[in-house]
Amino acid sequence: MFLTFEGMEGCGKSTQCKKLIEHFVRQGHDVLHTLEPGGSRLGKELRRILLDPKNSDLSSTSELFLYLADRAQHVSSVIRPAMEDGRTVICDRFADSTVVYQGYGRGLDPSLLHHLNDVAVQGLWPDMTILLDVEPEIGLKRALTRNMLDNKTATEGRFEAESMAFHTRIREGYLTWAALHRGRFLVVDAGRNPDAVFESILRGLEEKGLG
Amino acid sequence: MFLTFEGMEGCGKSTQCKKLIEHFVRQGHDVLHTLEPGGSRLGKELRRILLDPKNSDLSSTSELFLYLADRAQHVSSVIRPAMEDGRTVICDRFADSTVVYQGYGRGLDPSLLHHLNDVAVQGLWPDMTILLDVEPEIGLKRALTRNMLDNKTATEGRFEAESMAFHTRIREGYLTWAALHRGRFLVVDAGRNPDAVFESILRGLEEKGLG
Repeated sequence: MFLTFEGMEGCGKSTQCKKLIEHFVRQGHDVLHTLEPGGSRLGKELRRILLDPKNSDLSSTSELFLYLADRAQHVSSVIRPAMEDGRTVICDRFADSTVVYQGYGRGLDPSLLHHLNDVAVQGLWPDMTILLDVEPEIGLKRALTRNMLDNKTATEGRFEAESMAFHTRIREGYLTWAALHRGRFLVVDAGRNPDAVFESILRGLEEKGLG
Repeated sequence: MFLTFEGMEGCGKSTQCKKLIEHFVRQGHDVLHTLEPGGSRLGKELRRILLDPKNSDLSSTSELFLYLADRAQHVSSVIRPAMEDGRTVICDRFADSTVVYQGYGRGLDPSLLHHLNDVAVQGLWPDMTILLDVEPEIGLKRALTRNMLDNKTATEGRFEAESMAFHTRIREGYLTWAALHRGRFLVVDAGRNPDAVFESILRGLEEKGLG
């Protein structure tokens, strides 16, 4: 089973990821918890390139292809082998993040991005994608509080520094994309307390026969 | 003006590139001579990653996206700025190499690769592409002699180490691709002596109004 979490910063992905892993481990699953970008060794090298101030002139298209290279390698060297070993894979962000952030967020064509993702994942789409939907104001407040507690720098929190208009586009982009692919997406109201959110996730998994 | 050279190893790209640059400089052009992969700073970093033995598990799809990231950055940070400054750009290998080597050579779909290239070059296709066509036996003999003289290692000459069947596919792939895009391609018989080859290039440029 291959599940992915999506949603804006501060939507509660880490918390719900952790709860779901504990749930599956209790059920006897062998769980692999991974993330993008940076889930493969190549991804870590690319992350270093992306954050290197020397490469601040990187074009948005070039950046997009680096993310896709990371994804292709993550799928072939980490996710697919784990699934072939019968493990349950839970990934924090995956292909949909590219469509939503570079597409709905930055103005590239979402259908083109979906097509590029299709090349990168080589047929390995998640069995279910959990979208944690939250008002941008609430998500940002949570993300900024967390960044302060973690002493994160401005670069690490670069998405949080975007305008409210950008975050509104991201939220609406996620909802549009999820509606267009509703067979795969589970949309959960993540503005509530973590236990209530997790209850909705478990119910959604059961309804799709993945509980 | 933006011109690219294509052809298998040993077809004489370096020699003819040099002759054409000298010709244009004599005519008063300000010429930029560049190459792929590795024409941008990002490209040099990616080249290091591609050749690092630690990354020998790199999937062909991931490798493809790294080449495309290099190309996108090369176009936006090197080729396009040079053209905006009124310079003539001559590039040793460009988008067609990806179609021919990864497509006709490795079995990926050439139309898909063309589509991906279209995203990477963002509308900046060459005014003319010069294909130096040579029998695989002749090209390989030249390439191997040059590698011995240059003391190149096996890794640097990895394309030369491929089977004759591979090189035949590359040659036929180039000829097919050039025939499909004959408005842009100039196909030159490169099995002759360098001066005769260069004469054909000059005549081809004149016929296309680029002389």
